Amino acid sequence: MKNHVYGVILAGGSGTRFWPLSRELFPKQLLRIIGEGTLLQQTFERLIQHIVPKQMTIVTKETQADSIRLQLNEWKDDLTDNIILEPEGRNTAPAIALTALQLMHRDPEAVMVVVPADHVVKAEKKFMKAVQFATKLAAHGHLVTFGIHPSRPETGYGYIQPNKRKRIRTQGVFVGYSVARFVEKPNLSTAMRYCRSGNYFWNSGIFVWKASSILDELALQQPVLAKLIHGLARYVGTQEFLGRLRKAYAKMPSLSIDHAVMEHSSRSVVVPVDFGWSDVGSWGSLEEVASLDKNGNVRNGNILDIDSKDSVLFADRRLVATIGLDNMVVVDTPDATLVCPKDRAQDVKAIVSLLKKHHAPEHMEHRTVQRPWGAYTVLEEGHGYKVKRIEVAPGKRLSLQLHHQRSEHWVVIAGTARVTRGEEVYDLQPGMSTAIPKETPHRLENPGQDLLEIIEIQNGSYLGEDDIVRLKDDFGRLEQAR
Amino acid sequence: MKNHVYGVILAGGSGTRFWPLSRELFPKQLLRIIGEGTLLQQTFERLIQHIVPKQMTIVTKETQADSIRLQLNEWKDDLTDNIILEPEGRNTAPAIALTALQLMHRDPEAVMVVVPADHVVKAEKKFMKAVQFATKLAAHGHLVTFGIHPSRPETGYGYIQPNKRKRIRTQGVFVGYSVARFVEKPNLSTAMRYCRSGNYFWNSGIFVWKASSILDELALQQPVLAKLIHGLARYVGTQEFLGRLRKAYAKMPSLSIDHAVMEHSSRSVVVPVDFGWSDVGSWGSLEEVASLDKNGNVRNGNILDIDSKDSVLFADRRLVATIGLDNMVVVDTPDATLVCPKDRAQDVKAIVSLLKKHHAPEHMEHRTVQRPWGAYTVLEEGHGYKVKRIEVAPGKRLSLQLHHQRSEHWVVIAGTARVTRGEEVYDLQPGMSTAIPKETPHRLENPGQDLLEIIEIQNGSYLGEDDIVRLKDDFGRLEQAR
Repeated sequence: MKNHVYGVILAGGSGTRFWPLSRELFPKQLLRIIGEGTLLQQTFERLIQHIVPKQMTIVTKETQADSIRLQLNEWKDDLTDNIILEPEGRNTAPAIALTALQLMHRDPEAVMVVVPADHVVKAEKKFMKAVQFATKLAAHGHLVTFGIHPSRPETGYGYIQPNKRKRIRTQGVFVGYSVARFVEKPNLSTAMRYCRSGNYFWNSGIFVWKASSILDELALQQPVLAKLIHGLARYVGTQEFLGRLRKAYAKMPSLSIDHAVMEHSSRSVVVPVDFGWSDVGSWGSLEEVASLDKNGNVRNGNILDIDSKDSVLFADRRLVATIGLDNMVVVDTPDATLVCPKDRAQDVKAIVSLLKKHHAPEHMEHRTVQRPWGAYTVLEEGHGYKVKRIEVAPGKRLSLQLHHQRSEHWVVIAGTARVTRGEEVYDLQPGMSTAIPKETPHRLENPGQDLLEIIEIQNGSYLGEDDIVRLKDDFGRLEQAR
Repeated sequence: MKNHVYGVILAGGSGTRFWPLSRELFPKQLLRIIGEGTLLQQTFERLIQHIVPKQMTIVTKETQADSIRLQLNEWKDDLTDNIILEPEGRNTAPAIALTALQLMHRDPEAVMVVVPADHVVKAEKKFMKAVQFATKLAAHGHLVTFGIHPSRPETGYGYIQPNKRKRIRTQGVFVGYSVARFVEKPNLSTAMRYCRSGNYFWNSGIFVWKASSILDELALQQPVLAKLIHGLARYVGTQEFLGRLRKAYAKMPSLSIDHAVMEHSSRSVVVPVDFGWSDVGSWGSLEEVASLDKNGNVRNGNILDIDSKDSVLFADRRLVATIGLDNMVVVDTPDATLVCPKDRAQDVKAIVSLLKKHHAPEHMEHRTVQRPWGAYTVLEEGHGYKVKRIEVAPGKRLSLQLHHQRSEHWVVIAGTARVTRGEEVYDLQPGMSTAIPKETPHRLENPGQDLLEIIEIQNGSYLGEDDIVRLKDDFGRLEQAR
């Protein structure tokens, strides 16, 4: 049985609610906001307690793939093949259908454990026991979802009501019930009634089912979507697949798997659980899962505080001084700072919308941007110049590239740089420098065992990341704009 | 009469209360916190409505001299000779005594109008009329201070009670009374009683007197201080003066002129006034003098706000997003951010003390540091390297210098750089670069009409500002450590 169990991590979110720490290109699952590792890494590690890494799949968007690869590599060697790239975000139903199709191709008996990348589960053993129970239900064709015992009348979640007269299976503390109904986010009085009744559970967004079951049910409930996915079946594993996928996705409806299938299916089963789950939906909710100082503050980074309590204080390398805050959120990043009362933390979405509307770069990406070869940090941009610190991991190299509109100067500050410039290849040590004229093919490589760090100064009238003509690349990025 | 009137601006404060915008080496008077220009520039401009610039004197510390020169130059050409440098801060009495001594040497009839550099006066015409009235009193040997009609029971100020039976002089709205007594900062109930009585006035710290009168009175009240100052008299204008001054200052008591003289002198006269004065003592007090948005916020810089009111929101180039703040202070600078309720703004002093105790650089100076030739900004520091953007004003040049422990790379990003390196002299345009090895004498000069900007990357095991050996300098800094 266990050999047919596959982990599926949904890692496509854009995570506006943790701005400015999250960005459109660096969403919540990539953040290290509680405990060791990022939420994605924690999710991955939780699943591989019982699922071998090669049976793990991460579904994400192209724009986040570099960052995800880097985070998984930090944990273990090469997991590049475990990533399924969606051409664009279309909510959970298409992502799950696509993954089910690919798993079916690999193993017709595949059972999928579908988990969002950005949730917290504190009781990991309970979680895995619940998953084991659910896989047995799934083996019989059921579509299993976990319902969380509500600890408060939360109005931000959907609820699931089990049909208590239809017990499908019981084992120890676990019971699987047929689902009576799914309920959208309720108002406060309804949520309070649900909590008191003991007969409603939070919809966790974690699912267990056979790949074949969910595809069958999609064919019943969502014929348009199912047909598009089915049309891809014959191309799985072929060179044509990517092109076909793009075309299919362009026509794909944007639907959640709950709306698309679970709410309508007679096969839906809910298993009430209590494994310390949180979706960490906002800065305000962090206090539920993070460790607190003696005054009830969540603290991170270079904070100098006097008398604050019950606040979320997040700094990076810069100093943040706080005095007498009460139930406030302060989040500082290299290019943007957020300050608001905890109960207004949901409104950070409105800030992100405003930034997007004004095309402000602060909603899109951080000043530090991860790449498959390492990372770069923009230290300063001004009229006609840009200064970056570039880190290249040992043994990695950037693409062989040229720029039409800028020259570059590189000064090595740590490690050894192997520079290709036109026909020349030479090594530079810390304190040495080189100049790359416009239109000259060049490449930066780290031939050493230690991190290579350089300062790059770009000069030119146009300094966009899209003025990169890639001639050769180790990461298959010749066609990408970035 | 007017030809004997001299303006004296006391500009020695360290201004911890406006941290993080103020720093030990960049105090409040150098800040542009309200209106056009810095508080120092506004003070200077206020006085030169009636006092010619060559009769203005600014008393400050060596550590602030570069920044003050730069700010005065921004306003008008060369005012370098108008600056009196105290070897170290010793409160107002020694500063005033030193200035009086020098003015006596220049003009035995000199009348001094002594004004702190970091106060706000909104009604400038009323101010000058009050000064004119006071100079008449001063001509008769009185020591005149202005008492401000209190607008609230402020417990942070000292108060002055006039002896209403002893009117010294009356003219239009102005009356000069003999002083009954000076009162230290009162508690709230006493302050409320003072306000109701109409017979107490805030001690403004603005004084008008003849240089000879204050020196005479110092001799009476503060014989130790007076003797030290008197001992310098014969060296004024000689090469020996600076050395003698340092020695005298080392022995000088640290005293305010109020404590040292005004509280004890029978010559003290108070003139009640109402010229829109504020000492802008904290972030919280800014609302009294700054212009407010429609929600009562003081706003500056790149602020994106939703629903905040009655708050002080100060950003620089970085984005600060605020939601639903009420009576809060948020101040963001390139290396430090402050967040506190307005009524805790006084406690920023405690933050500065903590930083000082931990030798954190954020209390001492900004990432942008002004120099007589321009300025530099530290973009990033790391192990073995430092990256700076350096701006050199047209026609200016840095000292001819060398470093024992670091090499430097310069990349020009704007303007023309004239580089001296060993025996070579050459010009660089934007996009060009040069390397300066350790131990090599070098100089950076801007021969052009436009600002020169370069990126400097320093490499070395020690990168402190004190590893500068100056060989030649246009600004007399060969002996200084910086």
